[in-house]
Amino acid sequence: MKVDGVARRSIQLAADGHSVEIVDQTLLPHRFATHALRSLADAAEAICSMRVRGAPLIGATAAYGVGLQMREEPSDASLQRAIEALLATRPTAVNLRWALDEMRAALQDVPPAARAARAYARAAEICDEDVENCRAIGAHGLRVIEALRERCAGRGPLNILTHCNAGWLATVDWGTALAPVYLAHDRGIPIHVWVDETRPRNQGASLTAWELGQHGVPHTVIADNAGGHLMQRGRVDLCITGSDRTTSTGDVCNKIGTYLKALAAHDNAVPFYAALPASSIDWSCGDGIAEIPIEERDGSELRCVRGCSADGSLVEVAVVPGSSPVANPAFDVTPARLVTGLITERGVCEASRAGLEGLYPERAGRVSVA
Amino acid sequence: MKVDGVARRSIQLAADGHSVEIVDQTLLPHRFATHALRSLADAAEAICSMRVRGAPLIGATAAYGVGLQMREEPSDASLQRAIEALLATRPTAVNLRWALDEMRAALQDVPPAARAARAYARAAEICDEDVENCRAIGAHGLRVIEALRERCAGRGPLNILTHCNAGWLATVDWGTALAPVYLAHDRGIPIHVWVDETRPRNQGASLTAWELGQHGVPHTVIADNAGGHLMQRGRVDLCITGSDRTTSTGDVCNKIGTYLKALAAHDNAVPFYAALPASSIDWSCGDGIAEIPIEERDGSELRCVRGCSADGSLVEVAVVPGSSPVANPAFDVTPARLVTGLITERGVCEASRAGLEGLYPERAGRVSVA
Repeated sequence: MKVDGVARRSIQLAADGHSVEIVDQTLLPHRFATHALRSLADAAEAICSMRVRGAPLIGATAAYGVGLQMREEPSDASLQRAIEALLATRPTAVNLRWALDEMRAALQDVPPAARAARAYARAAEICDEDVENCRAIGAHGLRVIEALRERCAGRGPLNILTHCNAGWLATVDWGTALAPVYLAHDRGIPIHVWVDETRPRNQGASLTAWELGQHGVPHTVIADNAGGHLMQRGRVDLCITGSDRTTSTGDVCNKIGTYLKALAAHDNAVPFYAALPASSIDWSCGDGIAEIPIEERDGSELRCVRGCSADGSLVEVAVVPGSSPVANPAFDVTPARLVTGLITERGVCEASRAGLEGLYPERAGRVSVA
Repeated sequence: MKVDGVARRSIQLAADGHSVEIVDQTLLPHRFATHALRSLADAAEAICSMRVRGAPLIGATAAYGVGLQMREEPSDASLQRAIEALLATRPTAVNLRWALDEMRAALQDVPPAARAARAYARAAEICDEDVENCRAIGAHGLRVIEALRERCAGRGPLNILTHCNAGWLATVDWGTALAPVYLAHDRGIPIHVWVDETRPRNQGASLTAWELGQHGVPHTVIADNAGGHLMQRGRVDLCITGSDRTTSTGDVCNKIGTYLKALAAHDNAVPFYAALPASSIDWSCGDGIAEIPIEERDGSELRCVRGCSADGSLVEVAVVPGSSPVANPAFDVTPARLVTGLITERGVCEASRAGLEGLYPERAGRVSVA
């Protein structure tokens, strides 16, 4: 997508051919700056600190993290250490495990001397595959938008609500939830996006609003609390979110608060879709609420808000009394019964085992062993 | 309730006998400071700027605002101007209109020379009545807590979720939603309160957490997005919120986001109560979603977050890109079907016309004319 009119990816190889350039997402929307990853430690830090976030982008960054380590030390032990270190960075995103499994498979039978080159090549493929998957998700999601557009014709732009950031900043390019939005906008379909602020990290206000603004898509930022009211008043035609992990039965684990929006959509007959690549599907998991561990992140994310002060500097301010405890679960699970459909790179399906197995028949009846 | 161990009200007459002392709620939780109202303009400003907020406290402040104006100029025209100016400060709270109607009724047949004294006396009565109402709400709500406590016995403290601030800072003392919480805590019933941050103004993080902390009630601040997840995992036993306006049919208009919590409570079979004095009931309104105007507040509330910086100063930081539009509806309507019961000063009833008319038989069949 475009930044200041120039097309770029959220992660790309730097001009030196081996360091990896990411957009430092902790500085957005106030500063646009890239950040160079030069080692495994840099890659792990970028994931832990959420300079990069979003399930697909975490996977891509981890893949390059293995490459950076193979360049330094290509032994079996080093490969194992790299995979373990990266796997420990975030517990929820299933793409992280997927990408690291891919890297292990690509490298374990390759002689150490050839591993760095192979790792970079596989990481680049993972990125290209992600872009292609997102483009396909966009094309399938576009049909959902077009069908609703016909139903809502003459009522002004189609109003789409999204939560958190599942845009190009969460992937390598295009995004998952936002890919259909960008495609629709580029085709001249009048759309307007309600952007949930997405406390506590404000990814909606800081990332989704920024990237929609850069691409020229009309949008309005709202408090997370506002979506139900807007749906009640008929001001939302469609919800699309991403998914950090989707069970084989169609439960959607996504940013905390997604479940509340799905409840409101259901209560107001607003279609609710999750957009995701197959790499986000956890085929071994059949019950999201019972089985998915929910990452509890540091309370400072809730206690402190970072923003731009009057003099233009980035500062953190405390918003909770220092003596009050806080809790900060980062994800929740939206049961399949509240999800109208899943938009994947292979098409749109019902949020159910039958729906997913229809699109991925090669998985039917199989259960992954982690 | 207590501040630094000393009992006080959120609004009280100052030592000079005519200025009115409020707690400046815009400085909490970082500073505790009182603020003197010396004129009608001061009272209107305190309501507009939300130095005071919460439906009952707004009513009490407006009552004293009339008193301050009567002290300056007790003519009929001056009384009319005072009522109009105060009525224009906030559109949603029905108590504001109620309190001003009370003041008009108390003053219109009184000779101008006697109006100031009568106004101060009636304002003081309104405050005392509010305290008594809140104490009664607390006693009735306590029975709800005690009944649940028996059902949840042996599972640790009873977990109560609340949204926004309906504590003593929203009333003159005790609070509405928090009155049962304080009473239960004072009686030694083990309770723990999940405090919704309540974006965009953060009344939960800044006011509810502060007042619960001052009174020693165990609590944890969470993002507004987290409540559904906690209910799904069985970590919430009861929700209690306030209500800015309750229809004659039991719909609850309250802080934006209340509806989302009621949906989650319903989906997880968690009892959901609203606590309110009769002055918050709009007997003329039968359909909250169709009839209640929702205040759209300034976008700066969402764009900027005020908090305490590292050096201890209060600063505002921007969290939304300057070029992105924002929308800021301040309330939503929770349909009666999602409300387990209403806790009023006369008892607990079903959220329905029959339930309310059972507690307020003098209103049965009557419709207020505004």
